[in-house]
Amino acid sequence: MSTIDQLIRDIVAANRILANENIVDAFGHVSVRHPQDPGKFLLSRARSPELIEPEDIMVLALDGTPEPGDTRKPYLERFIHGAIYEARPEVMSVVHSHSRSVIPFGLVGEPIRPVIHSSGTLGYEVPLWDTQTRFGDTNLLVASMAMGRDMALTMAGGNGVLMRGHGSTVCGRSIQEAVYTAYYLEVNANLQLQAAQLARTPVKFLTKGEVDGIISRIGDGLPGEGFSRAWDYWCRRAGITG
Amino acid sequence: MSTIDQLIRDIVAANRILANENIVDAFGHVSVRHPQDPGKFLLSRARSPELIEPEDIMVLALDGTPEPGDTRKPYLERFIHGAIYEARPEVMSVVHSHSRSVIPFGLVGEPIRPVIHSSGTLGYEVPLWDTQTRFGDTNLLVASMAMGRDMALTMAGGNGVLMRGHGSTVCGRSIQEAVYTAYYLEVNANLQLQAAQLARTPVKFLTKGEVDGIISRIGDGLPGEGFSRAWDYWCRRAGITG
Amino acid sequence: MSTIDQLIRDIVAANRILANENIVDAFGHVSVRHPQDPGKFLLSRARSPELIEPEDIMVLALDGTPEPGDTRKPYLERFIHGAIYEARPEVMSVVHSHSRSVIPFGLVGEPIRPVIHSSGTLGYEVPLWDTQTRFGDTNLLVASMAMGRDMALTMAGGNGVLMRGHGSTVCGRSIQEAVYTAYYLEVNANLQLQAAQLARTPVKFLTKGEVDGIISRIGDGLPGEGFSRAWDYWCRRAGITG
Amino acid sequence: MSTIDQLIRDIVAANRILANENIVDAFGHVSVRHPQDPGKFLLSRARSPELIEPEDIMVLALDGTPEPGDTRKPYLERFIHGAIYEARPEVMSVVHSHSRSVIPFGLVGEPIRPVIHSSGTLGYEVPLWDTQTRFGDTNLLVASMAMGRDMALTMAGGNGVLMRGHGSTVCGRSIQEAVYTAYYLEVNANLQLQAAQLARTPVKFLTKGEVDGIISRIGDGLPGEGFSRAWDYWCRRAGITG
Repeated sequence: MSTIDQLIRDIVAANRILANENIVDAFGHVSVRHPQDPGKFLLSRARSPELIEPEDIMVLALDGTPEPGDTRKPYLERFIHGAIYEARPEVMSVVHSHSRSVIPFGLVGEPIRPVIHSSGTLGYEVPLWDTQTRFGDTNLLVASMAMGRDMALTMAGGNGVLMRGHGSTVCGRSIQEAVYTAYYLEVNANLQLQAAQLARTPVKFLTKGEVDGIISRIGDGLPGEGFSRAWDYWCRRAGITG
Repeated sequence: MSTIDQLIRDIVAANRILANENIVDAFGHVSVRHPQDPGKFLLSRARSPELIEPEDIMVLALDGTPEPGDTRKPYLERFIHGAIYEARPEVMSVVHSHSRSVIPFGLVGEPIRPVIHSSGTLGYEVPLWDTQTRFGDTNLLVASMAMGRDMALTMAGGNGVLMRGHGSTVCGRSIQEAVYTAYYLEVNANLQLQAAQLARTPVKFLTKGEVDGIISRIGDGLPGEGFSRAWDYWCRRAGITG
Repeated sequence: MSTIDQLIRDIVAANRILANENIVDAFGHVSVRHPQDPGKFLLSRARSPELIEPEDIMVLALDGTPEPGDTRKPYLERFIHGAIYEARPEVMSVVHSHSRSVIPFGLVGEPIRPVIHSSGTLGYEVPLWDTQTRFGDTNLLVASMAMGRDMALTMAGGNGVLMRGHGSTVCGRSIQEAVYTAYYLEVNANLQLQAAQLARTPVKFLTKGEVDGIISRIGDGLPGEGFSRAWDYWCRRAGITG
Repeated sequence: MSTIDQLIRDIVAANRILANENIVDAFGHVSVRHPQDPGKFLLSRARSPELIEPEDIMVLALDGTPEPGDTRKPYLERFIHGAIYEARPEVMSVVHSHSRSVIPFGLVGEPIRPVIHSSGTLGYEVPLWDTQTRFGDTNLLVASMAMGRDMALTMAGGNGVLMRGHGSTVCGRSIQEAVYTAYYLEVNANLQLQAAQLARTPVKFLTKGEVDGIISRIGDGLPGEGFSRAWDYWCRRAGITG
């Protein structure tokens, strides 16, 4: 199978996994940078993640323009993806979701920081981007490259960004890593909220050194092992074979 | 297929979607205004939403009277629907539910306001109606037009109303919009509760301008696009085809 | 079908419904008073509710003694049931469960009171029984008639009792009513907990008059209608037919 | 069937049960001490619990070394198991998990103590082990016998230990007991968190005498009865037959 065919299969699997694990629902999307042309990326036409088939995958320029002659309707918010690929050459995959435990943190401006080893891939802290700051009253959707670029600026060199009143976006050096981080951002938010409800003493987050220890070994067995074991497990749960 | 047959199919689908997404359970109902006669509406006979078939749909006058000769048992609380259609000519569909995250807000008098773009269709704030205020000790059910009209007065020009110790009711200009708003009222309540648990700082709700931006575009692509994509996704999850 | 055969079918259905709705798990039980002999009751042999078949139902005297020759192992906690039937001639059915939202109220001594119309069958307040008070250190199980009678004393004329560090027990004038009350005790506890988390103002419980209005109409259409509609819905969800 | 074949079947069943009940996900593992050689234990190769088959079970020395010639990849964290078997001759089974309600307690240093009779097998209190204390910045995984032994020291003579930013580990005198305790540690944490949210008065934990009453009867009918009834129920839910 060609690289691009494999990536398309992985995008379809990623969408189904994230739907099955309740990270995305009718909304949310997964993209991957084009393997032969870093100025393009692969993303489904506008469709609910669980319903996506290989034929739905479109090729888009970083500014969101479809290939000539492709008249299918892309996601309105494709600029989230293009702006991150433009700003971050090492990023190979982006996931945007409205997963439920993450949103409350953006509503009260409480930072999300990793509380377990599995969410060390989030980095030290997930910053908050608010459309109000630069764009005033909008419908909060990322409807232009200007908005996407502003969001990517807030994300800076990190792997995730909270979007106030909307959801969150994460990235990774592979689809597997981006899916893993999207999943554990949700898990981490849920645990952090529970800890905040219990707390008589401050929550103990991972130390900077612990986060460094985890991030530095991505692709080197751990959490690389984790990506792969989790991916296989999630595929099984989502009914994906082969 | 005639307009009315399509609407009956949509009512059945809406009931199954809302049951499948845990917005209604054994109780709750969905109605639509009669497409040829604005003085009537369509509503199932008294039955749990998940079990409803096309044959169960009755035609009722706005005061809740069934068609002559129709001896089936209607919902006791059909006055919720009739009173809203009477007061609001633009409303085409009404959903009443006991969805679980919404009820606590009515118990403590905490207003529900939209915290994410998807719940902008709720408007600025969902008001609280309490049977005690005008009707004293009852079993809290909306058992007469007088109660329905009082509830509709509290709802005023908005799209939703909380019912103390009971549940909530929403409306829309189509079944799809009413179902969408019923679903996102529950999601919004859940997010708002979590944010309240986290909050060291005030929760940041959507601004009035943001809500206006969302409401003004209903039927114009967005959130119209959202209604349609969500509807297709929910149908798939509920096993509804064709 | 004879009355007793129908009751046995209802007990089996009740066990499956309560398992399917997460009110009971490996533990918990449902009994009904014997229709011909008020000094006896029907209860499964010691088995997880979801696995119970008609052949598992035993006949026990109120003091928990099986019929002569019946060597099957009864539930250790059958005294919960016998003691309530002994003290309350009008009670026809008893449900004991460990449903999860109810237990925390017993742990902190916070009373459960109805917050929605559906849980009006609980009465004004569900009292708390603690084995420590009269029996000191035990394994907290109701292992004798003395313990069962002490629990029934705390329950008094009400429909439910919390058991500290253990669970809860409810009763009704029919299996359908007892199952309904067991289900809505759990729902009410969950809603009351959420309201407590939100509350800047006191939670507004049903008034005494509202509770009276609901209780007085049991068996008279409402909530009688509710018992029946809910029962049919729960049977469908649990895969019970016929 | 030989003892070892039966134990292998039980390990596979235990993994599926714990996956089905959401105690383990892609991660977590169950081991049993070798029935003929107390210096060895049985543990799956590195694989997600739900996917484990009898052929995946490896034999490891207490220091984590596989049998000569077995080149399959073991779990990195097998030292959790070996160190407990080394320190505790009476322990026959160990379960390590990341179950979600337990983790927040480790994050804030709030002790978990039994609040219901079913979790009396936890003992008086579940202590907290933190890798930072002795090993400084790591990726928090138990990657050596030195770490495993330090964790076992904190566990001391108890049945469970919390692992900060990671999860928890429990043990038992049989697979059934260890699975039961892993399950009720999660249940207890969830109940204790809810009680903390309600509490205007201190949470009432089981007394020392109540815990003694429960622990002293393990293997003697109760909670032995509980292990067996729960095991049968969980097998049925997980689709395990025979």
